[in-house]
This record gives sequence, structure tokens and C-alpha cells, in this order.
Amino acid sequence: MSEPTVTACVLIIGNEILSGRTQDINLNHIAVTLGEWGIRVREARVIPDVEDIVVAAVNETRSAYDYVFTTGGIGPTHDDITADCIARAFGVELVTSPEIAAIIEQRPAPPDVMKSRMRMARIPDGATLVENLTGGPQGFRMDNVFVLAGIPRVMQAMLASLEGKLRGGKVIQSRSVTAYLGESQIAGDLGRIQDRYPDIDLGSYPFLRGDRYGTSLVMRGTDETELEAMLEEVKSAIVAAGETPQDVQQG
Amino acid sequence: MSEPTVTACVLIIGNEILSGRTQDINLNHIAVTLGEWGIRVREARVIPDVEDIVVAAVNETRSAYDYVFTTGGIGPTHDDITADCIARAFGVELVTSPEIAAIIEQRPAPPDVMKSRMRMARIPDGATLVENLTGGPQGFRMDNVFVLAGIPRVMQAMLASLEGKLRGGKVIQSRSVTAYLGESQIAGDLGRIQDRYPDIDLGSYPFLRGDRYGTSLVMRGTDETELEAMLEEVKSAIVAAGETPQDVQQG
Repeated sequence: MSEPTVTACVLIIGNEILSGRTQDINLNHIAVTLGEWGIRVREARVIPDVEDIVVAAVNETRSAYDYVFTTGGIGPTHDDITADCIARAFGVELVTSPEIAAIIEQRPAPPDVMKSRMRMARIPDGATLVENLTGGPQGFRMDNVFVLAGIPRVMQAMLASLEGKLRGGKVIQSRSVTAYLGESQIAGDLGRIQDRYPDIDLGSYPFLRGDRYGTSLVMRGTDETELEAMLEEVKSAIVAAGETPQDVQQG
Repeated sequence: MSEPTVTACVLIIGNEILSGRTQDINLNHIAVTLGEWGIRVREARVIPDVEDIVVAAVNETRSAYDYVFTTGGIGPTHDDITADCIARAFGVELVTSPEIAAIIEQRPAPPDVMKSRMRMARIPDGATLVENLTGGPQGFRMDNVFVLAGIPRVMQAMLASLEGKLRGGKVIQSRSVTAYLGESQIAGDLGRIQDRYPDIDLGSYPFLRGDRYGTSLVMRGTDETELEAMLEEVKSAIVAAGETPQDVQQG
């Protein structure tokens, strides 16, 4: 009996990504990491630091996916509104986490600075903490929503602390092979092969290396036997098109 | 009288982004380019190559934003379904564009290969073409939806061809200044400054360079006089916190 797919959505909260000031790298890290845990990211949204928009996105996605991961907006400044938004989305109050407050108080500061820092100790009533292996203030979990930092190094430390604590389905395996030929030269065969293996996702990704065009063919699915059989068919299609399959990889 | 804000949404269509295989760089380029044209990206979604999901996302976003830009899924293989999805979203048939077909036919190929390539000539009935400065098959525009390639070099060439052809609002200007202090050391002042300039967006972005923590303060808005005044207040706040404002930039 096949295990059901476990799904996730990533909400990237931050004007700086939408303005183009900052290149997001968090989605990629989260997608790869969750994939290794058997959780499939099915959607990601980049949204601005606007309370109504964040609340609506959280409520829409937390009912549509098994897990939701947010990044950004949990620092000490006025534009850090993620905790407020999660509380509103769940219809609960914000409370002060004594554990986070204790970490914040370890570093002495004038009252005005400490007051700002204490914004980071506010969590929705009922939330539990997500460890922060960098030693800074923790993130938190509210039901199926995980609220992580936006700074990649900190986000990665928080996500790492969740390993083994989430429900995962079968881990997606992959095979890939490269051919120095145009996509259209094997497109017909690829379509027919895909039709024969409906449970394996066959993607074709053209590239240009130096002055040579080529195509990476990537197969993703949970059944190793099917993956191997499909890989052989794809390699045969490459040979039939007059080229040599290269750089076969498995992941 | 202030011009209304012109908004955009970016739909990044592709399993390879959601699986983590590929790091998206298209959103960043589109956000920066549209910003220079006076168009604000207010949301971005990364969605899989699944027809129902793409159709729903296109219909939801094309009514909510002035413009929608899609990337990906317009190649010659079975997983390139964007044209089909746009046609379905608008309730029209796919037709063959003679202009795209002519470009495709310039390169001779066996019938099977040509047939696959001709997938790229299919556009929704009523669409107009988006030039492709690389010389390859064009993208297309359907009402307020622009359908661009996924390969960054090709996407950029298509987007560049739209310069001067879109309606833009006032261009967003920015000022930024860096301080080697923790965000919380000026968080109180920043909140008060933000309150005094509701039309300027003041963002605070912490960073770690070598072993020094710092914060980049970024102001974005359309009124240069307000931006300059706010910048001076932010610089004063940095000085009041005992640090020196550094790396002042304008963009």
C-alpha cells in the first residue's frame, strides 16, 4: 500500500525579495531539505510585509497543505510582523515566551534596546518553540505552521532542528542524464515514455554550456525499479537520436 | 495628484524550482526590471507543472494585479503546458502562430523533431507575440498576462523587448544606509521614523560580514524629498546609537 504524499507550502515574507533588493535562497534550501525528509513542496509564495496579505496567505495555505513554512519577519523592528500575523490567522493572542525572553536577556542592553529585542519573544498563544542552533531567539510552530527566520544561516539552523520531528512520506528519488541535443530531438520519445510511467515525473531542462546546447532529463519518483527502467528508456531514446547519454546521476 | 500604483504578479511555473533542483533567479530579474519601469511586483508564486493549478493561479492573479508574468513551460516537450493553461484560463482555443512557425521552420529537422518544435508555435487565440531578442521562438501576451521563457537568458531577452510598452506608475526610488549595530539598538527610533513617513517603506535587514553584525536600512518610495528627509533622520538615529552611518546609496 503506498503511503500518502506529504505536502508543504513555503511562504517567503519580505518586501526585499519582491523589490529585487535580495535574491531569495531560502526556498531552494527548504525544498531540498524537505525532499530528503519525504515532504514535497507543492507551492511557494513570496508576499509583502502587509498584515492582511500575510494572514490571508497563512489561512489559505495551512488548510491546503500538510505543512506551511514561513521565512522572514521575526526580528526586532517595526517591519517584523510575522508573529502578529500568525496569531491573527489562528485567532489567538500573542504571549511572551519565557524561554525566548531568557535567551534575549542573556545579553545586557539599555531598556529601549531590550524592549525592541523583546518583540522577538512574542509568540501566538499555544505555539511551541523551534530550536535555533545558532543560539539566538527561537522560531515557533503553531499547529502545522512553522515560523522561521529570514536570514538564511539562521533559517537553516532552525530547519535542521526539525529533522526527524515531521511526518514524511516516501522519499522522492531521482535519476538524471544529460544529452547534447535539442529538446525537440527527443521530445516525441519523452512524451511516450512519460505516458508509460505515470507515477514518475519526467522533466526536460535545456541548457547552454559554452556554445553547446544540451538537455538534462530528470526523473523523480518513489519507485526505484520504475526509475531505473525509465532511465534505460530515456538513455535508449538519446542513443536513437544519435547522441551519447552523459553524466548519469542518482539522488 | 499622485499616479496610481501599477502592480504585477510573477508566476514561476516549474517542478524543478519546487524540488530544489534549480535555484530560481528569474523573479529577482523581473522585480528589478519592472521596478525601473514603475511597476511593483506585489506577489510571486512558484507552482508545479500541473494544469489545474496553473489555470487557477492565472485566473486568480490576472484579476488581482495589473500585470501577470509567467516564466517556464513554453518549450517543445510534454511537460511544457503553459500555453495550454493560458488558453484554458481565458476559455479560448490554441492556434498556430504563423510568425513563430516561420522562425521554427528556419532550422530544418526530421518530421518527428519538427512536430515537437511546433508545440512552441501554439498560442491562445487572440494572443499577441512578445519578441525574443535571442532569435528563438517568441513568447506571447494574452490580455494582461505575459508568457515568458524559463531559461533566464531567454526570459531576459523577452522582458527587455517590453521596455516602453507597459503602463508604469511613478518609479520607486530608494535610499539605503548601513550601520554596524544590532537592529534592536535602533528599532525604537526606526518605528517612530516609519510612523512619521507612512508613504515611505523603511526596511531593516540585518547581516553578518566576517564577524561583524550590522543592519542595512532601506527606504523605498516615490517622493525624493521625503526620502532625503527620512534618510537624514535614520542617519541621526545611527549617530545617536553611537555608530557611524556608512555606505549611503541612492537608487
